[in-house]
Parts: sequence; structure tokens; C-alpha cells
Amino acid sequence: MSAGASFDLDAYLAARRRAVDLALERYLPPAVAEPPVVHEAMRYSVFAGGKRLRPILVIAAAEAAGGHLADVMPTACCFELIHTYSLIHDDLPAMDDDDFRRGRPTSHKVFGEAVAILAGDALLTHGLHLVALNAGLGKTALDTLPRVLAEITEAAGTPGMIGGQVVDIRSEGKPVSSDTLEYIHTHKTGALIRAAVRVGAMLVGADDDDLAAFTTYGDRIGLAFQIVDDVLDVEGSLATLGKTAGSDQRKQKLTYPSVHGLPASKARAARLVQEAQAALVGFDAAGEPLRALAAFVLNRTM
Amino acid sequence: MSAGASFDLDAYLAARRRAVDLALERYLPPAVAEPPVVHEAMRYSVFAGGKRLRPILVIAAAEAAGGHLADVMPTACCFELIHTYSLIHDDLPAMDDDDFRRGRPTSHKVFGEAVAILAGDALLTHGLHLVALNAGLGKTALDTLPRVLAEITEAAGTPGMIGGQVVDIRSEGKPVSSDTLEYIHTHKTGALIRAAVRVGAMLVGADDDDLAAFTTYGDRIGLAFQIVDDVLDVEGSLATLGKTAGSDQRKQKLTYPSVHGLPASKARAARLVQEAQAALVGFDAAGEPLRALAAFVLNRTM
Repeated sequence: MSAGASFDLDAYLAARRRAVDLALERYLPPAVAEPPVVHEAMRYSVFAGGKRLRPILVIAAAEAAGGHLADVMPTACCFELIHTYSLIHDDLPAMDDDDFRRGRPTSHKVFGEAVAILAGDALLTHGLHLVALNAGLGKTALDTLPRVLAEITEAAGTPGMIGGQVVDIRSEGKPVSSDTLEYIHTHKTGALIRAAVRVGAMLVGADDDDLAAFTTYGDRIGLAFQIVDDVLDVEGSLATLGKTAGSDQRKQKLTYPSVHGLPASKARAARLVQEAQAALVGFDAAGEPLRALAAFVLNRTM
Repeated sequence: MSAGASFDLDAYLAARRRAVDLALERYLPPAVAEPPVVHEAMRYSVFAGGKRLRPILVIAAAEAAGGHLADVMPTACCFELIHTYSLIHDDLPAMDDDDFRRGRPTSHKVFGEAVAILAGDALLTHGLHLVALNAGLGKTALDTLPRVLAEITEAAGTPGMIGGQVVDIRSEGKPVSSDTLEYIHTHKTGALIRAAVRVGAMLVGADDDDLAAFTTYGDRIGLAFQIVDDVLDVEGSLATLGKTAGSDQRKQKLTYPSVHGLPASKARAARLVQEAQAALVGFDAAGEPLRALAAFVLNRTM
């Protein structure tokens, strides 16, 4: 279950992160473009030290399916912009009302609520603009783009991420079932992670069998990621998480450990990551980054 | 400048509105879909008596360019969903803080701010989902969709609608130049209307010459529409507009009449509509609905 001894995940992540950061810099409107304040706000949140997990998953899936980073970069960046928009809107006073994110003041604390809302809207809009730029790149067939657009907008919409967020905010402070918790986690976080993996493979022409394997992988690490996030919130500290540890608990946010306990939560995450890695047995060396990323999702401390 | 005597605009608008409403009903997730509250909020604002101007412009441009309503309906509905999302977010307390829209309580008054923000996000997301559904319909070539997606996301993003809204809210209560007013109007309202006309023509394969004519048309009626809106705010009443007449003035919102005066505003709108109609001289009977729509934009009372 551990990554191959010969594979250096840290070096892989550092190289991909650098490539993603350069692409984001290129694809985002310059901060001086009219009107500057909204472009500054977009960049403030995008360049706030994110892990770039979602774009790296797009890239790693494309590589596992025989493609290359350059074939999928605009769409990889789309996932980071959509993720960032969701954080800005989640942090708003009307939602989670968070003052800090990754150790820095949240968007609305710096730019005001109106600009924060609009910066989120703009990141979603511009993210999907980037999907159009993926037309004609590398191995991307023209008839793939409508499928990719449909997949991303479903994962980011009410059947996915927004649906999870709606149920999450409506459940705060109420007793909820483990089914509801599972719904929130698989939708709010899981849907976009699963879509990142699937879209990366789709863009480089993965066949249906391979796509099924990627779907299982994405499904499992999507849920594992959120369970680990909950565990870290209980165990973590401000230093590593950039937010106050236990903050979800204090807000009576529903978490996996609060419903299932810590040991069962950790066991479930480990099992999910095992299943994710097992789905990729057919991929040999090309699947090594994805397998190592699954282990990273489980063992991360931030 | 008047519409041809034989063309019945009212019947045309009624038929297209009915078709758009039926399509919106079909394309929106049912109100009972999980989680219901956000789908109810989406439908509450979409079915609030809108004129359906933008989707009808998509359809009329497609018809003028030799296509048919069925070739463009998903994308036509996309424009209505994007327009509706922008209204929900504009009405939020952090933005214009409006309690009423079209004579009914605004989304955040009915569903709360969090759900209103998310319903807006979901309408934008689902609107662009519908563009994917336009793939393979009627005359739409596969390589047209990336162009259409790029066009819509640019018109709705910071180079268009969001840019206009940002400058608008940042200008409230300040003295601004007529250049700034022109920027706000052409971006906040004009960009999406222009894109609706262009995209309708693009989807059915309009050539570059025709597209240039549609661009001029869309450009002119987009600005005319907003100038007339400002004029109506000064002259209108709660009964016809569904909002308190003079409300923009009281909020010290920048309007065309407040900068240029009423007579010059009306003259400018009339001249723009004339230019829009002149751009379509080459289109004979197929262009009649668009020419009549331009007159409608000028003469509307609500």
C-alpha cells in the first residue's frame, strides 16, 4: 500500500505545484486589469498557499491515462479556481463566518463582502472559461469538451458541491444521521475531487474501463480527504492548519469523528485509500503518482 | 424605424416566452430534488415574471441567421439563468440591499442570505451546464461550443457583467465621469445582451460578415436597454416596474439621466436603436423579429 520506494512524491508534487502556479499566474487576469479590486481579490485567494490537490489530480490522472500535463493544464486550473471560489463563499458572514483561512484574513475581511461575493462569482466564471481554452490542446477530441463541461458543472452544482454545502449549513447545530453526514462529505468535497480525476482521464481519451477505475479511485479519495480533514480539525493545531483547531467542533459543525469517533474515522479513511489504490492495480508505473497521492491524502498533517 | 406592419411582435414574444418557460421548466432540477431548498430558491427567482429578453434574443438571432429555436434552446436558457443569478447577488444586503424585485420579496428575504448566495452560484453553474447540452443539437458544429463557452464566460465575467457590477457598487455616492457611467452600462448589462445575440448566430453557423452585423446590433441594444431602464426608473411607478420608482436616485445610483439629463438620454437610446436596426438591413424578413425587438427595447414601459 505504500508508494514504490523509487517514486519521490515530494519532488513530483513540488514540480506539478510549480507548473500549476505558473499556469494560474498566466491564466488569471492581471491584477491591474479593470476593475483592479476584483482581480486583486481573485489573486489574493488563489495565491494563498493552497496545496493544488485538485489540479494535480487532474494532471496525475491524465498522466496515468497516457497523456501529458500540457494536454490538461487549463482544465486543471479550472478546478483550483472553482475550489477557491467555494472557499471564499463558504467563509462569508452569511455562511461559516470565518475570519481566517490558511492563516490569513479571509477575502471579505480584506476586500469587503460585496467584492468577496463577486470575486467568488468571477473565479467560477473564469474557471469555466478555461475549459474552453482546453479545446484543441494535445489529445483532447472536440467531442470531449461538452462531456467535460457537463461533468464539472454537475460536480460543482447542486448535484455535487453546492448541494453538500446547502445541507451542511442547514444542519449546523442539529442532530443529524450518519447518512446525512455521508451526503455532505461526498457532495461538498468528494464530488469535485472525483470529477478532477475523471476529467483528467477523459481529456486524454481514457476508455470506459480505465475511466471506471479512475472513478472508483476518485470516489474513495474524495471521501477519505474530507474524513482526514475532520480528524485533523480535532487533532491539528493552528500552526499546521492555519485555522483554529477544533473550530468545526466549537461551531457544532458536523464531523466524521463527532458521529463515528476518532478510531473508526481513521480506520474508514485508511480503508478508502486502500480501495483507491486497489482500483489502480492495472496501471503500473504510470499510476504511481496517483497511488502515492492517495497515501498522501491519508497521511497529510495539513 | 417601426416594425413592419405585417409583423406581430406581441404574438412573436408570447410564443417565444412560452417556449422558453417550458424549456426552463424542463432544464431546471425539480424543486423536490435533494436538497429542495436551493432548487426552490432557484425556481422562485427564475419564475418571477421575467421578460425573457436575453433567451429571446438568442432565439431571434438564430432565426435571423437561418436557424431554428430548437437549435439553441439550452444556451438560450443559459442566458436567463445567468441573468437571474446576477439579480439575486445584486439584491444581497452586501450589494444593493433590495427587499423587492418585480413586486416580490427578493431571494434573501425569502430563503435567507446563505441560500440566496448559493442559489445564485447554482444558477450560474447550471446555466453553463446547459451549454454542454447544446452539443450536437441541430446545426451546432462541435468546434462552435468552445467559442460559445468562451464568449459567455467572458461576457458574464470580469471583462463584462461582473466588471460592470464591481465599478457600479464602488461608484455609489461618488461623483463619476460620463466615461465611468458608459463603462458600467456597457459592461453590467450590455455585455450579456450583446453575447446573447452573437451566440445565437454563432450556434447556427453565421459567417463572419453576418456576425459583425449581429455584434453591432447587440452592442447598440445592450446600451439602449440600460439607458431606457434608467429613464423608466425616473419616470416609472411601482405598478409597472415592480420596484419603487426613483429608487436608484434615492440610493444615489449613477444613472444616465442623472449625468446627461432626460431629453439627451432618450435621444441617445433612440439613436442606438436606429443604429441597431440599420445594422440588420441585409436580413429582410428573417431579421424582422430582431428589428421589432429593438423598437420594443426603446418603447417598453416595464
